[in-house]
This record gives sequence, structure tokens and C-alpha cells, in this order.
Amino acid sequence: MHVLILGAAGMIGRKLTARLVADGNVGGCAVERLTLADMVPPQQPASAAGQVELVARDLAAPGEAERLVDARPDLIFHLVAVVSGEAEADFEKGYEVNLDGTRALLEAVRAAHTADGYHPRLVFTSSIAVYGAPFPNPIPEDFQATPLTSYGTQKAIGELMLGDYTRRGFVDGIGIRLPTICIRPGTPNKAASAFFSSILREPLVGQDAVLPVPETVRHWHASPRSAVEFLIRAATLDGQEVGPRRTLSMPGLSATVGEQIEALRRVAGEQAVRLIRREPDESIMRIVETWAPALEATRAMRLGFAAESSFDEIIRVHIDDELGGSL
Amino acid sequence: MHVLILGAAGMIGRKLTARLVADGNVGGCAVERLTLADMVPPQQPASAAGQVELVARDLAAPGEAERLVDARPDLIFHLVAVVSGEAEADFEKGYEVNLDGTRALLEAVRAAHTADGYHPRLVFTSSIAVYGAPFPNPIPEDFQATPLTSYGTQKAIGELMLGDYTRRGFVDGIGIRLPTICIRPGTPNKAASAFFSSILREPLVGQDAVLPVPETVRHWHASPRSAVEFLIRAATLDGQEVGPRRTLSMPGLSATVGEQIEALRRVAGEQAVRLIRREPDESIMRIVETWAPALEATRAMRLGFAAESSFDEIIRVHIDDELGGSL
Repeated sequence: MHVLILGAAGMIGRKLTARLVADGNVGGCAVERLTLADMVPPQQPASAAGQVELVARDLAAPGEAERLVDARPDLIFHLVAVVSGEAEADFEKGYEVNLDGTRALLEAVRAAHTADGYHPRLVFTSSIAVYGAPFPNPIPEDFQATPLTSYGTQKAIGELMLGDYTRRGFVDGIGIRLPTICIRPGTPNKAASAFFSSILREPLVGQDAVLPVPETVRHWHASPRSAVEFLIRAATLDGQEVGPRRTLSMPGLSATVGEQIEALRRVAGEQAVRLIRREPDESIMRIVETWAPALEATRAMRLGFAAESSFDEIIRVHIDDELGGSL
Repeated sequence: MHVLILGAAGMIGRKLTARLVADGNVGGCAVERLTLADMVPPQQPASAAGQVELVARDLAAPGEAERLVDARPDLIFHLVAVVSGEAEADFEKGYEVNLDGTRALLEAVRAAHTADGYHPRLVFTSSIAVYGAPFPNPIPEDFQATPLTSYGTQKAIGELMLGDYTRRGFVDGIGIRLPTICIRPGTPNKAASAFFSSILREPLVGQDAVLPVPETVRHWHASPRSAVEFLIRAATLDGQEVGPRRTLSMPGLSATVGEQIEALRRVAGEQAVRLIRREPDESIMRIVETWAPALEATRAMRLGFAAESSFDEIIRVHIDDELGGSL
């Protein structure tokens, strides 16, 4: 099969690429061709069995989505997004990438469908940011999208379009509403959620980290490894089992910042915890306090999606996958 | 004040125009200028006190929304829509008018806001079609949008954009989720819901009507007079009282087709009822059975919105407003 990853140069995109190359198949189908696309050129994976193509393109630019769909990939992962902090800071860019880019992709697939019946599985990453406070804890599966950020608005719109294009038979879409991914490797991105990772990631390697919110903040997390697992599961699901509501809330771990820090203490000791510096930031707090503390993810769990059950486990995943297995 | 009505040539637009001309004010502010815009030229109202301008334009065409916003109307009613049956039949037209048109208007207002702080009240008509089965009866205020038509999808997207542009301070938007409007005067439109009106409207004047669904079908109704009342109320609401969730489910009357027919019998007698011909239509049934039987509208009711409480009343509104007060 031919797999297209849009947003392949991002953190999740790189991990998904590595996983597909390592497995050599998705749900038992050999990956014969892998197209890695992003605004910046994605990296060539080390040892892919099949053909690998690297493409640097702006999905939202006229004609680009059509060009990517020209080769009729059997499976498309759509991971391209301007993240929450950036979509809030740059209104136009957020709508251009997160709304127009997603629509351009759906339109390109529809045009191909109309031409020759093309009907790929399209996995779209949405976000818990479609929910904005106030809401019950946990947020029920059937709760309304009440975004309080432009990013959340754009993701909710993407979910709606994905559902409609799928209902009309133009594409076989599955949306997955990702928890905040923790611990993100590398350097902080522009997401307002960046601190959830850095308060663990930096101390684990002896560096300072800044905590801009109180320890009582509760949020919904899953590791990068789980995120990749979610994507693979979404790629191989039977659409019939999902039904017309094509976006699924992913399982996660509901934890307070205090619980994150306790887990860090258990795994890496008091000297790691002492590297966390409190620097309250009102603007981050205002965004974060509107976020979901926990989601009901019973539909996804019934369909075989699973996440970590403790922050100790999330930290160990990071140590295994990013730090060579030990501190 | 300057009032702009987009979609002024439609049924609701014409009734709203007549009401504004009759009242001469909205919430105590004199209507000094009235701009009536639609794809087809709107009619000149008989006796407006202020200046009236008629404009035939396609809101979704490049530059048209900007031109309409140029005069900085204080209050905008956005009633333009391709209705459910047509948006289902013509996928591209539905997205162009219902999504791109709404977005073009929001973008034009945002550009004006950026230029000079312009910040009009924008009343957007959404629809119960944002809900698709299965759902509880009545549908709670916080239930997710689960559209099963392209029209419902486009309206749900409009609600999301309206909320985000309002949150960002670019516009002061209020969305109202209209029930099915019954009895629509005139000839049937392309909405799949057209029969709800025609099974009453035609028999009231001695004409045949076709009923394509069983009498057990339950749906959510309000009269055209209530719809105009909703629009006026939405125009004058204090945005602070509405909060960040800018779209309100409007109150209505939950009734079965059988109850509609019983009301017709009470108001117009058995000979009227005998004019209804049963012609089951699977394609209409498939659309209608996914529609809401009733909504919780407690937020709107608390804010002073009210609808009819019986179908007898809805029929009498039609007789008063369309048939000169008697049969």
C-alpha cells in the first residue's frame, strides 16, 4: 500500500514514520510506498523497505493538495496543524493551515473520487481543544464542541467536514481527538501546553524548567508512543464499527501538575523536582484553565484504543524512547 | 441606526423587513437606513420612514461582502442560505453559499474592525439541522452537533466561526438555531421539510397537499412570526448575558404530523383534512427521520425568546398574517 503522511516533519509525524518503517506494514498490508510531506523537507528514514518520497509543500497553497493526491495514496495521515498558541497569535495563519488546508485536502480527495472512485482512509488528528470550559469532568462523549481558542474552533470545523465528506462517500475519514501529548521530545513548541512536557523533560536531563501554572491544574495526557498507536489503530479500524460520528475522543490519563511532579520524584528523585521553577504566567493560565481535565473515551476504548495508566509509565516511555532506556 | 439584511428576498427576510419598516426601530433605536441584499433583487418596502437601499449581490463572490460592510451597518441579519434539500443535491453550492459566504462576511467585518474598530451585532440564523440522530428527546442544550446533512454541517461550522470571531472581538455575533418554520407562506421551497407547511397551507385554501412521511413523525416547529420575533430579540440581546456560547437553540413546539392534522381539523374542518394525500417518499423520510423531535431551549427562554404552544395557534398565525384573518 501507498501511505501519505502530511505533517511528516513534526514530532508525531517523525515517530509515525519510524514506526511504519520499522513495522513495514499497516494492519498486515505491506507499505510499498511512503510519501512524507510537510512545509519543511521531512527527513529520509534510515532503512525503509519500500519506496520513500520526500515532499516539501504547503498543503493550503492552490493545487498542492491535488498534487499530493495525484498518486492515489491508499492511506493518508493528516497531521498538519498550526498549534494552539500560534493559531491564537496569528489568526490568519491558523485558519489558512487548519481550516483551508484541511478543506483543500478533502476537496482534492473528492475530486479524485469523482474522477475514478478513489476512496482512501484519511486519519485526521483533532484535539481536546474542541472543548472549552465550563464542562462536566469527565466530558461525556456526546458533549458539544465549545472551543475557546481559534485552534479548537478550526479542529472542530475539521471534524465536521471530515464527517460530511465521509457521509457523502468521498472519503473514508476517521478523526482522533488527541490528548495533550506528554512528554514531547525536543525543544518546546509554541503550544500553550508546552510546559506539561518541559517540567518533566528538562529535569530528567538535569536542566531547569519553568512551571507557569499552579500544581492543581488537571489535564488529559498520553505519550507520543500512544499517539502513534492511536494513529495506526485509526488507520486499520473498520469504518462500519465507527458509524457516522467519525471522530473519536482518544483515551488518556487525567493528572494534575502536582501528580506529574510526584511521578517525576518517584522516577528521577528530589534533585530533578528541584529544577522546576515556578513562574506564574497569566496568559498561559487563562488558556489552560479552559481545557479539558478528562474525557470519556468509551467509544474509542471499545474500539481497541488504549493509553497509559500512570505518569510514571509516561515518564518511562520517554526514558525508553528518547533517553536510551536510562537516566 | 443602519440595518443590513442579507437574504432579504427570502421568506423570513421579507417578513423581517416588513416588521422593521412597521416598527421603525429595533430595541428603541430608530432605523434610519435599511439595506436589503440578496442574490435576487429584494422588493422595495411600501412605506419605510428611513432610507432604503436594494442590493442584488452574491455574498460569496470576491469583494461583495466587503462592499456590503463598507457602509458600516450597525446591525446585520445574516439569513442567506442554501436550504437542506438543495445543499444535499448540490454539494458545491451548499459549501459555497453556506460556508464560504458566511466566512466572507465574517472576514469583511474583521477587516473593517481592524481598520477602524467597527464591531456590529451580527445575527446569524442556524438550524436544528446541526443535530442528527440518534439523540435524546428533547436534545439537551449541551449536546454535540451531529449533522447528517451537508446543510447541518455548514450551519454548525457557521456557529463555530461566529463564536470564534466574537470571542476574538471582531464582531458581536448571536446565532439562533431556528426550528422548522411552519406554516411557510407561498410555494414550497427545496427544503426536505417543505411538506410540514404544505399539508396545512394548501388545504387551508382548498388545495391538495402531499404528505410523504407517516403521521408519527415528530418535529420542532415555530411560526414565521415567531422567527421574526427571534431575530429582533437576538438583535437587541445583551451579549454579556449570552456568554461565550453564542448560538442559542430557539424555543419551538414539538408536534407529530398527526397532531398537525388534528389542529387543521379543529381549525378548518374535515373537508380540509381530506385534501391531504399520502404519498410516502423514502428519500424525504430518510432525511426527516434524522431530525430533532424537540430541543431544550432553556437558555433562550431565560433570555426572553418564546414560541407558539399549540399547532392551532400556528395555524391561526398563518390565517391572520397570510389569509387576511379568516378562511
